[in-house]
Formats: sequence, structure tokens, C-alpha cells
Amino acid sequence: MYSFEELKSIFLDYVQKQKLTDEPLNLYTPVNYLMEMKGKRIRPVACLIVANIFTDDIQKALPVVYSIEMFHNFTLMHDDIMDNADIRRAQPTVHIKYNINRAILSGDLMMIMSYKHILNCCDDLILKNKLLKLFTDTAIEVCEGQQYDMDFEDKEEIALSDYLLMIKLKTAVLLASTFKTGAMIGGASDDDADHFYKLGLNLGIAFQIQDDLLDTYGNSEVFGKKIGGDIIQNKKTFLYLKALELVGEDKKTQLISLYNDNSLTEKDKIEKVKILFNSLDVKKHAEALIEELMENAFDHFHALSIPEEKLKEVKSLMNYLLKRKI
Amino acid sequence: MYSFEELKSIFLDYVQKQKLTDEPLNLYTPVNYLMEMKGKRIRPVACLIVANIFTDDIQKALPVVYSIEMFHNFTLMHDDIMDNADIRRAQPTVHIKYNINRAILSGDLMMIMSYKHILNCCDDLILKNKLLKLFTDTAIEVCEGQQYDMDFEDKEEIALSDYLLMIKLKTAVLLASTFKTGAMIGGASDDDADHFYKLGLNLGIAFQIQDDLLDTYGNSEVFGKKIGGDIIQNKKTFLYLKALELVGEDKKTQLISLYNDNSLTEKDKIEKVKILFNSLDVKKHAEALIEELMENAFDHFHALSIPEEKLKEVKSLMNYLLKRKI
Repeated sequence: MYSFEELKSIFLDYVQKQKLTDEPLNLYTPVNYLMEMKGKRIRPVACLIVANIFTDDIQKALPVVYSIEMFHNFTLMHDDIMDNADIRRAQPTVHIKYNINRAILSGDLMMIMSYKHILNCCDDLILKNKLLKLFTDTAIEVCEGQQYDMDFEDKEEIALSDYLLMIKLKTAVLLASTFKTGAMIGGASDDDADHFYKLGLNLGIAFQIQDDLLDTYGNSEVFGKKIGGDIIQNKKTFLYLKALELVGEDKKTQLISLYNDNSLTEKDKIEKVKILFNSLDVKKHAEALIEELMENAFDHFHALSIPEEKLKEVKSLMNYLLKRKI
Repeated sequence: MYSFEELKSIFLDYVQKQKLTDEPLNLYTPVNYLMEMKGKRIRPVACLIVANIFTDDIQKALPVVYSIEMFHNFTLMHDDIMDNADIRRAQPTVHIKYNINRAILSGDLMMIMSYKHILNCCDDLILKNKLLKLFTDTAIEVCEGQQYDMDFEDKEEIALSDYLLMIKLKTAVLLASTFKTGAMIGGASDDDADHFYKLGLNLGIAFQIQDDLLDTYGNSEVFGKKIGGDIIQNKKTFLYLKALELVGEDKKTQLISLYNDNSLTEKDKIEKVKILFNSLDVKKHAEALIEELMENAFDHFHALSIPEEKLKEVKSLMNYLLKRKI
């Protein structure tokens, strides 16, 4: 069985081989630019790890794995336009480096090419049909998640359940689908494939809440981003929405106006918000929910009809994503 | 066999049944808005006409036909953003009525839903695989065509062969693919399906050149648009590019500066450009090319292994599209 790093390296070689040189260059260049950007490559490696449980011949999984990564990058290309984001992975985003029109059109192309890679993956029409249906349902959910995310920007208050639905759709279903796809390519039973889906779903939601948590309470060196960014940008995170839920009606207005106060210095705003968050114990609430989601994920992990020694890399990946040492 | 109008009405009923009411509404509303706009519905009816040659049960063709129309509308939604177009079919375009972000995201969704409709079309996995591959190859070509179109805006001069490649990719391949899809759903032989493809391809290119021709030389009541719009907007049409090809080197600068001169009144500019066009006989060149393309289209029509009485509606459609009376 291959390690995370070995699989990442196999995938990166494959990415290089897929480099597009077709005309018109203005259409294909942005695709190469984004696909070759350095990244953790969590999704492709996760898919390969799961496929590798069932088969040593992981070459056959590569077209579908590549398709998932291309779909993910298509969403980044379009989301960056919608979110007006200038920088991704320390480099200019596509619409900044090229222009908005090219980012729209090259994104469209990537979406279509994701399908092309699945269509060319194999001769097993039954498997391919299942993969395409899962991929399509997932892609629709991801669009729904992005729309909810945009809708939430214009709302003062969002129920936590709606926030959890949004992160489930926007990010977790793709991780879930990635795990399940690896299982399907490997030839897992339907039950095992479903357990992999639910494992990925819980892991994905937990990962996103942890991201919110680390943005405020993390160590900037480990987290890789400046701490407090969400607070500075008045982002409606799990911590903020939980605080809104917990704070008494009398103090709610105070919290809302503090969180939206951009006249304070960054340091002051972060400090004041954190004092309020701490008084409401929102950190503990976030940790408890992450714990619960990870327990769910491990329930599905343990329900797999696969000998545990074959699941070593899956377990490492789960712990790596949640940066827990156990 | 059904008539054009009967098939259009069957299709419009189907569109109504597909109306989306899912959440989030902000994502799904623009899809309904564009899909329900009044239009000629050339593509869906063309596909149904061809399928109807082989089978009376055209209900089974509807999901795929709907997918083609949805794909076409997705390209309109995104092209209108890229082209900065405010009006489509006498109504505000999606990014004007809603906003750019919603037009990007709802367009993405439509692209994905086009696949969903094909995936749900039938249980015949071999047919479905073929339909999906044709659809995907076509969609990639349409993106290439749109990129060439945008590239050409920044160029002073474009070879006519490049212009023809652009209109082939941007519009004709979808019509070709539509005809072929109808044939494939109907169960045509591979040879017949290929003839339908090439028939549609030639027809599509001819249609586009005729569109250029009518914009300058048409009757505004029949054409449905103001005559001379392309000249006013300095559009690089077949007529202009042919004129550039034919005009002597000495007069080329004069033509280029006249065509790009926006200080003239609209009436003056149209008149002066037409005098130049007339002196070079570009109208006749356009008519000759349309004639040649239509002959090619009819060669493929006559090569079909289908009794001619079954092809009546196809022939009417071909003549209707080129508005010729024969």
C-alpha cells in the first residue's frame, strides 16, 4: 500500500501529463495555471488512499481522481470571482492574473472536462454511470452551498443549523463523494461505499468547523494564516453564530455592533471579540461538535467490512485532517 | 409524424413541468427565468424532428432534448456576462435582472443539470455513454468558439478561415450535435447519425453567415432586428472580413478606419460602409458561400438511408432556417 506522500507524488506526475497545450491558448492556459498551483491535494490523495485499499493498480483510478481535483479547482476559479478574492495559495487568482471573462470561460471548460475525464475512465459502463450520477448530484449540492454562502452575507443572523447545512453542501459533500468514489472504483460493496461517504461527510463538516476555530484560537504558524482574519472580516463563522445563539437578548445588539465595527484597530477588535466569545464558552462548543462529528466519522470507519490493518492510511488521513494526535 | 409547431408545443409543456422550485431560490430562479423566455426553440425541435423520423414515442427523447436547450441557455447566461449584454429576447439578461454572481453560479448549475438530464434519460447505458461523449466534446468546442470570439475582438484583422472556424465551434457544432443526438435516440445507423451531424454543421455555419448578411442587407421586419447593427458596433462579420480580404492594400487602411469610425452618424456610417461592401461584391460572396454550404447540407440529406417522405419535416426545417423558398 502506498503512503500519502507516494500517492501525492503519483498524482502530481499525472497532473503534469495532463497539461493542456490545445488552442485557443487563452482558454487552456488558466486551467494549467490553477491545476499546477501547489496545494495539499487532500481530495485526490483521499480518493487514491481508499481505492488503494482494494487494489494495487491505482493507475486506473487516476482519471476519476483527476476529475474530482479539476472540479474542485473549477469551483475555486468561479468562487474567487464571486468572492472578489485576489490571492489564492499566495498567488494571484485567475481573474486577477488574466481577466474575469477568461476565468468564467476557463472555469466552464474545467467543469466540462471533469466529465470528460470520468467518461474516459474505463469501459465498465455500470460503474461509470454510478460515478457520473454521484459526481453530478455532488456538483449540484456544491452550487447550492455556494449560493447559501452568498445569501448569508446579506443576512444579519443565521441559524446554526442553516450554517451547518451550508458548509455540508459547500465543502463536505465533495469530500464525502471523494471517499465514496475511491471505494466504488476499488469495487467496494454498496454498504462500505456508503460508510465511506458518511465518514467523509462528518470529517468534512468537522474540518470546516475546525477551520473556523483555528482562525480565532489557532497558532498562526501551524494554521498557515494570520489569526483573527475571520473576526477582522466580520465573517459569520460557527463561533460568531454560536455566540449569537448563546448571548442574551440584551447583549445581542452589542455583539452584532462590535463584530461589525471596523473602526477599531485589528488587535483591539480581535481582543474584544475573543473576550466575548470566551465569556460564552464558544470554543468549547466548537470543540464538542468537532468531537461529536469525529465520533460519527469513526463509527462509520469501524462499521466498514474491511480488516483494520488495511485502513491504516485512512485513519492517518482522518487524524491528519483534524490535526489530532491520538 | 408531428409538425414543427406540435413538437414545439410538446417541448414547451415539458419545460413547464421542469420548473424548479428547490431551495436556495436565488440559485434556481434565474434558471426558470431564462428557460421560460420566449424563443424559437430551434434546437429542441430539430432534435425532436429527427428522433420522430424513427419513432412515434418522442417522450423518451425529451430529457436529452431538454438537456441540449439547457446547455444552450447556460452558454447564453455566461456569454451575456462576458459580452456585457443587457438585453436578450427583449428582456433584461440574467446578470442585469439579478446580478453577475448569480448569473455565474446559476449558469454553472445549468451546465451540471444538463448532464443530470442526460444521465436520467434512459436505462440503455451504451446509448447514454455515446450521448454523453458527444455532448461533452460539443460543449468543449463551444467554449473554444467563445474564446476565439473574445480573442478576435482584440485583433485588427482575422483570416476568414479563422472566422469560419470560430462560428463553426461557437454555434454550428451544437446544431450538428443536436441533429445527431436526435438520430442516436431514434436508433439511426452510425452512418445516418454522421450524415445528420454534417448536415447540421453545414446548416449551422450557413445560418450564421446568413445572419451576418441579413444584419446589413436584410429587411428589418423579417430579420427582427435593426438593420446595420453590426456596422454600427464595428463587428468583425463575414462581410467585413471578406471586404478586408478583397480590398487592395492601398484602400485597406481606409476601410479599417471607416469601420472603426464612431464619429459618423449611424445612417452615414451604414451608407458609406455599404458602398464599400457593394464595390467589392461581398454580398455575392456571402450568398455563394451560403449556397455552397447548403449544397453540402443537402448532399448529406440525400445520402441518408431513409425514405424521403419521412424527411419532409427535416427539409422544411432546413429551408425555414435559411428562409429560402424552394
